[in-house]
Amino acid sequence: MHVMIIGAAGMIGRKLAQRIAADGVLNGTAVRKISQYDVVAPEGGDVQVADLCAPSVPALLVAQRPDVIFHLAAIVSGEAEADFDKGYRVNLAAVQALIEAIRAVPEYCPRVVFTSSIAVFGAPFPEKIGDDYHLTPRTSYGTQKAIAELLLDDYSRRGILDAVSLRLPTVCVRPGRPNLAASGFFSNIIREPLAGKEAILPVSDSVRHWFASPASTIGFLIHAAGLSGAALGHHRALSMPGLSCTVAEQIEALRDVVGQDAVDLIRVVPDETVRGIVANWPQDFVTPRAHALGFVAENSFDDIIKRHIVDELGGEAS
Amino acid sequence: MHVMIIGAAGMIGRKLAQRIAADGVLNGTAVRKISQYDVVAPEGGDVQVADLCAPSVPALLVAQRPDVIFHLAAIVSGEAEADFDKGYRVNLAAVQALIEAIRAVPEYCPRVVFTSSIAVFGAPFPEKIGDDYHLTPRTSYGTQKAIAELLLDDYSRRGILDAVSLRLPTVCVRPGRPNLAASGFFSNIIREPLAGKEAILPVSDSVRHWFASPASTIGFLIHAAGLSGAALGHHRALSMPGLSCTVAEQIEALRDVVGQDAVDLIRVVPDETVRGIVANWPQDFVTPRAHALGFVAENSFDDIIKRHIVDELGGEAS
Repeated sequence: MHVMIIGAAGMIGRKLAQRIAADGVLNGTAVRKISQYDVVAPEGGDVQVADLCAPSVPALLVAQRPDVIFHLAAIVSGEAEADFDKGYRVNLAAVQALIEAIRAVPEYCPRVVFTSSIAVFGAPFPEKIGDDYHLTPRTSYGTQKAIAELLLDDYSRRGILDAVSLRLPTVCVRPGRPNLAASGFFSNIIREPLAGKEAILPVSDSVRHWFASPASTIGFLIHAAGLSGAALGHHRALSMPGLSCTVAEQIEALRDVVGQDAVDLIRVVPDETVRGIVANWPQDFVTPRAHALGFVAENSFDDIIKRHIVDELGGEAS
Repeated sequence: MHVMIIGAAGMIGRKLAQRIAADGVLNGTAVRKISQYDVVAPEGGDVQVADLCAPSVPALLVAQRPDVIFHLAAIVSGEAEADFDKGYRVNLAAVQALIEAIRAVPEYCPRVVFTSSIAVFGAPFPEKIGDDYHLTPRTSYGTQKAIAELLLDDYSRRGILDAVSLRLPTVCVRPGRPNLAASGFFSNIIREPLAGKEAILPVSDSVRHWFASPASTIGFLIHAAGLSGAALGHHRALSMPGLSCTVAEQIEALRDVVGQDAVDLIRVVPDETVRGIVANWPQDFVTPRAHALGFVAENSFDDIIKRHIVDELGGEAS
């Protein structure tokens, strides 16, 4: 089993490679090779530099005939909105180049696990977004992900490849430093207080959103790699299970797990821009298809926090 | 008002140009020019040859700054399925080339009316397909149309152009000679008997499908050209109203309008291939968005037949 991870330098890519290396198997088969590529390669790691947007690079990668390709590489939502050309190049043209390179290899039909996003859905929403709700992206990022889903469905139906597209919930608690993503605060208000630091909450605590932990997210990707195409049928895009909760419920969970001292480190500083962006984000889903296919996520935000403490803080909040 | 029709040599393109020329106005404004382009140009007509897939052609067309562009050009479903590259080139890459050419023209934001298709939906279906049902194409043609819808939504949201995508019902009664399209029999079993000729019915008369007359279809296109972007909102793709009826109801209408002699010209010759294809086609829709925006179609198949007799047979069946 040769596993290739494209977009391996990101948080999810690194955790995925670690998990597969630790497991030593994928889909019940021994992993003999994990190829990791990204446009940037952190020093000292196993990630090799490869820009999928450059001519011939997709063909070179695919010529290795990996059995499973995790395609995680993407420009994030904010950047795809700010830089129209770069967004379409990285999030759409590079995906097209990859799947066309696969099509050019004779008698080769790899499992492709693609990270789509709940950004394929835009406001107005039903109370819960079901598995047959239409694609209504309100960003170029969401549009690019939705188009990639459709292409992967058609290429799968044609037998060119064997795709699974996962619409990932917002990953929370995201480790590392606070970042500038509009969704960053959902993680910041948990991670920073757990480390004894102050965090800013820019929206009302009534805001509701859809979450899964990094560990669950890695679990989705691993599980997707092993699903049978027959079980998936024609429609290869799946909204992943997650946990719908409000910011108030996140804070309540923080209080439950580590106490009021942590909660006191959250400072409310309203930001109308962030509030406006978040108002157009999905709040809740029902995901019967993913459940039936065996995907699982957390049931409580307490569990998400406890998982973060175990995985990132050595089992103890400061 | 300068109107451009791309894909002007087809049945819909020709009827659309005739209608606009006869009206002399579009959206209440006098039409000073109708530019007609297609990859083939029938002799003696006003259609000019232009292949949107050729480099620089989209830029040359768009440099004329038409106020309204009807983009009707497409490879049909069967051909897009048989020729993968041609389908993606004509139905997707050419659309991308056109909208990128529009993006390159400064201070220009034309109304683009795009003919999508109910082929963006594939089996299994709900009893009636609603306005918020997800895109589930089961053909490369349907995939290409769905992707074009998403691109046109995003380019509209960005203010690059001002699109309306119409998911057209099956056009029936289609004038002209019987063709080999799998859907051809829906028209053949009406048009041929009306002309005193025999027609083949390859499926069970319990088959249900979604229809609009050529006249209604032209009406959709004209109406779409005049809709305000504000009324349309973010989601520019609309399932068009139509008439859901079974083959038995089509035949009953033929009996009503012209009598049993015409019905006796229909010969049942089951074709398992056609039956299999048709089994995956949509049967019925509810289209509240299109109705609210003022689109109208026939309410009975009798009306569709009567319309054909007036428009194509000079008012009299043979």
